[in-house]
Amino acid sequence: MSATAAERGTVYLAATGTALPGAPVDNTALAALLGISEEWIDLFVGTKTRHFGWDPATGEVRGTLADLCTEAAAQAMDGCGFGPADIEFLILATATPDTLLPTTAGEVADRLGLGHLPVFQIQAGCSGAIQAIDLGRTLVRGGHRAGLVVGGDVTHRFLSATPEAARMPREELVNYVLFGDGAGAAVLTDEPEGERVAVRAVLNSWTGQGRPPGQLLDWYGTTDRDSGRPMLAEDYKAIEEHVPTITAEILWELLGGLGWDLDDIGFLLPPQLSERMTARIVEGLPATSAREVSCVSETGNTGNALPFHQLDRLLPDFTPGSRALALCVESSRWFRAGLALEKV
Amino acid sequence: MSATAAERGTVYLAATGTALPGAPVDNTALAALLGISEEWIDLFVGTKTRHFGWDPATGEVRGTLADLCTEAAAQAMDGCGFGPADIEFLILATATPDTLLPTTAGEVADRLGLGHLPVFQIQAGCSGAIQAIDLGRTLVRGGHRAGLVVGGDVTHRFLSATPEAARMPREELVNYVLFGDGAGAAVLTDEPEGERVAVRAVLNSWTGQGRPPGQLLDWYGTTDRDSGRPMLAEDYKAIEEHVPTITAEILWELLGGLGWDLDDIGFLLPPQLSERMTARIVEGLPATSAREVSCVSETGNTGNALPFHQLDRLLPDFTPGSRALALCVESSRWFRAGLALEKV
Repeated sequence: MSATAAERGTVYLAATGTALPGAPVDNTALAALLGISEEWIDLFVGTKTRHFGWDPATGEVRGTLADLCTEAAAQAMDGCGFGPADIEFLILATATPDTLLPTTAGEVADRLGLGHLPVFQIQAGCSGAIQAIDLGRTLVRGGHRAGLVVGGDVTHRFLSATPEAARMPREELVNYVLFGDGAGAAVLTDEPEGERVAVRAVLNSWTGQGRPPGQLLDWYGTTDRDSGRPMLAEDYKAIEEHVPTITAEILWELLGGLGWDLDDIGFLLPPQLSERMTARIVEGLPATSAREVSCVSETGNTGNALPFHQLDRLLPDFTPGSRALALCVESSRWFRAGLALEKV
Repeated sequence: MSATAAERGTVYLAATGTALPGAPVDNTALAALLGISEEWIDLFVGTKTRHFGWDPATGEVRGTLADLCTEAAAQAMDGCGFGPADIEFLILATATPDTLLPTTAGEVADRLGLGHLPVFQIQAGCSGAIQAIDLGRTLVRGGHRAGLVVGGDVTHRFLSATPEAARMPREELVNYVLFGDGAGAAVLTDEPEGERVAVRAVLNSWTGQGRPPGQLLDWYGTTDRDSGRPMLAEDYKAIEEHVPTITAEILWELLGGLGWDLDDIGFLLPPQLSERMTARIVEGLPATSAREVSCVSETGNTGNALPFHQLDRLLPDFTPGSRALALCVESSRWFRAGLALEKV
């Protein structure tokens, strides 16, 4: 198959890969760790399992961000038969790098056997996977034949194996039941050969003007580690109020830009904040026959990894001619992000 | 002036901007703060002044990364008369973000009055400015008319106003005399009108395969802040051994790619690790009549900000037809980076 005029400049997802550390931790185990009721977890977030790269019994870190991202990226490369010589750039998006320097992106490049190529690390939250795909698409259009986009997050610096749940404020406790560790990856290419998914549109728009952050994730150095400054906070009221509306806006903006109808969409990949929140977002969207592709109930909120996990679940059912929309909202400072995909 | 065929696809630096917090801190003041001899600073790094966004007397933070980056970016926009409506993307590179989420890039976008545009934050060290320019150039070539690239770093999370220098190992102490706070920025555009500097080539290549890191910058979360893990370390032996050689390789690679001769180069912007190290690097380069443009002696090593400060010093003397090379090595994991510039 050769590229038609309409397809020139088209960038394709050649394959995806995902990684989750260890066995799933269910709500029974998590409730026991936290000394809280399982019912509260079910009611508040609905998420049923998540994976941690640290041992809930001891806190020992068994899977770093580099471990997870390397596994996911290698799987994506295997999925389309691309070797290190075929990969011309790597972009890794995360909120939780293993170190500030050297970057985790470089470590992953090294473990994959890559070298002499641009390696970028994007600091981002829930929109990171789409930001990476946006940049990756621009790099492919700029002349690179293929590259890796990777996203992942890990929780071990913020969640402890021995939480003092009784003394923990509710807004801190909820982080234990929301988040999980994981990574995902995709190979982008301009080569339409094989089983390919065309990226028809990318929406990547920062819209935080004058709006307070919906999410905070902070870090300590050596001078401020005893400052007691909060490290992790979410403004759930703002998230619950704004995310469903923004998600619907992203959907219409993607459709409008392409001249697609809602009825053309076979699969919908909604934001994955928590099982309950995703359900609420989907309820708020216009009625559609599109099939929902979600994973948060099994993975927890894995941040930069999540859209890759949804894509991984989409692909087996994504038949030629089918269309899908992926919708992401980053509440940290209100990024609107999304993908329009078509199986070719 | 309209673009010739050769200039189509050319991306230009329209203007630069820089920011340094407070008054310069000289070696007399720094030696007093650390309780060490001024001569040791002169001998070891040679750097004469640096700026800190924190008060050396009290430790109070007076200038965040967002403060500095906003100031530099606003200056760059003013320098070419571009308003918020002209800016179509923002890329901010740093090793030391104010928070992990929301990103400092978003905060800077907000303060500049930007909105509804892609906003990226790159996690990087000494190669970050070039990485940002590389991505920015690709975005301009991909259809954006103009955008901001920004780089900056701050030290307050690692350097304290009350260091216990006597008990501090030498490799930790040296960070106080090497680094400084600062930010820099440039506007990139495809519009050749006005006083423009053409970006003729960008080299951005990760080459860390199997090589140990030359620099470490780590962070604590809530669970590991008492781990005692080192946060900041440099392998000076590796840096002294490799950086001069790599710098020469970057120079030849840029010249070779463009078919330029060394004699064509009027200005050379070498890596800015410290006054002494920069002198050693320049000594190791082939003899040239190019004028050296350095700033580290006055600014200290400001990481992601440095190349912008050199560009800012280059521009007043950069006459039409002149050519310049900027050379950067990121030792954290061995990025080779550089720019070839021509005043048009």
